[in-house]
Amino acid sequence: MFLYDAIHRRRDVRGQFTGAPIPADALERVLAAAHAAPSVGLTQPWDFILVSSPSLRAAFHRHVQEERDTFAAGLTGSAADRFAGIKIDGILESSLSIAVTYDPDRGSPAVLGRHAIADAGLYSVCLAIQNLWLAATAEGLGVGWVSFYREAFLSELLGLPVRVRPVAWLCLGPVSHLNEIPDLEQHGWRRRRPWRDAVHTDRWPSESRAESDHA
Amino acid sequence: MFLYDAIHRRRDVRGQFTGAPIPADALERVLAAAHAAPSVGLTQPWDFILVSSPSLRAAFHRHVQEERDTFAAGLTGSAADRFAGIKIDGILESSLSIAVTYDPDRGSPAVLGRHAIADAGLYSVCLAIQNLWLAATAEGLGVGWVSFYREAFLSELLGLPVRVRPVAWLCLGPVSHLNEIPDLEQHGWRRRRPWRDAVHTDRWPSESRAESDHA
Repeated sequence: MFLYDAIHRRRDVRGQFTGAPIPADALERVLAAAHAAPSVGLTQPWDFILVSSPSLRAAFHRHVQEERDTFAAGLTGSAADRFAGIKIDGILESSLSIAVTYDPDRGSPAVLGRHAIADAGLYSVCLAIQNLWLAATAEGLGVGWVSFYREAFLSELLGLPVRVRPVAWLCLGPVSHLNEIPDLEQHGWRRRRPWRDAVHTDRWPSESRAESDHA
Repeated sequence: MFLYDAIHRRRDVRGQFTGAPIPADALERVLAAAHAAPSVGLTQPWDFILVSSPSLRAAFHRHVQEERDTFAAGLTGSAADRFAGIKIDGILESSLSIAVTYDPDRGSPAVLGRHAIADAGLYSVCLAIQNLWLAATAEGLGVGWVSFYREAFLSELLGLPVRVRPVAWLCLGPVSHLNEIPDLEQHGWRRRRPWRDAVHTDRWPSESRAESDHA
């Protein structure tokens, strides 16, 4: 698949997983693509835990549902109504879950490019996630990023050492299709911003323009 | 360009910028690609400040050189020797700089998917950066991420509101070529890890294996 097609067709998938198996060679290409991401000081501080155990996934799914309830309890009026119709995860329906983690010890102590910005290593992990996401799209697979969880719960579930931080829980697998319009836009949760509104010259724009988003 | 070619040919560029102008249509495609990234709660919390002002770039470059000195002062022995030969930025030679920022107010107060993980918005910004990087690669442009800076300095330089966090300073422009081997590997700073070492099943591996990296 061409790069721009992958970038613009990619979606955050919740409801379209078929549960069919992921071809082993496709999964290898996807993981190798993730690992080819740039990283601060060439630390490659990510790890990918392929979670196929039904009991681990069921336990995580229960936790996510509780966090969904927590978020829902804070909503009122039309936001509460809109949220009620939104599916937030495909943990049980997707073929595989992948937990992505950040290990700050990799390349330590002197990480080139991290002395001034502690989060630079965390940023590297996210770059790998986007590579993974695009590669999955090119392979005809869908990805859904679940973020309704407490990091401490996931660390405990997967036995992460204290220093290692969970960054993402990704659902991966074949899909019936990728939606043209993002789920949240389809449900009226939020509309996408035109890209030109996000581009400025030389300095931050006057707040009247930058905050037009809130109008 | 095919997705996998962009992913595997992409490099963090410091020394290969030619300074030639960036075609306007290519820059538009690159920015639109960045903006097509996934984001928590469809918040699209990124902004891209195109820094072409020579005085702003020169001021940032001076700051980066100071931070380079700070980092160098903490190195000893062979690490200090290796670092001395490494070019860390192409701020002055590249055609354009792009500061990428994170605005946590976008979509607030109820950001779907951010109630449990405050950094989820920051993660979204990084996904956009990787889209930008790959799109630039497909356009025959190079990107270098400079992270030798203090966030407070950059915020002041670009007039960012207090709530807005700078995430990256990217150098962008035509390049003579993209290196086959990453700069830091070429200079013997670090070697890349085989991707299979980053992949585990169901739980974090025993520390003996995970820490083989330190051997």
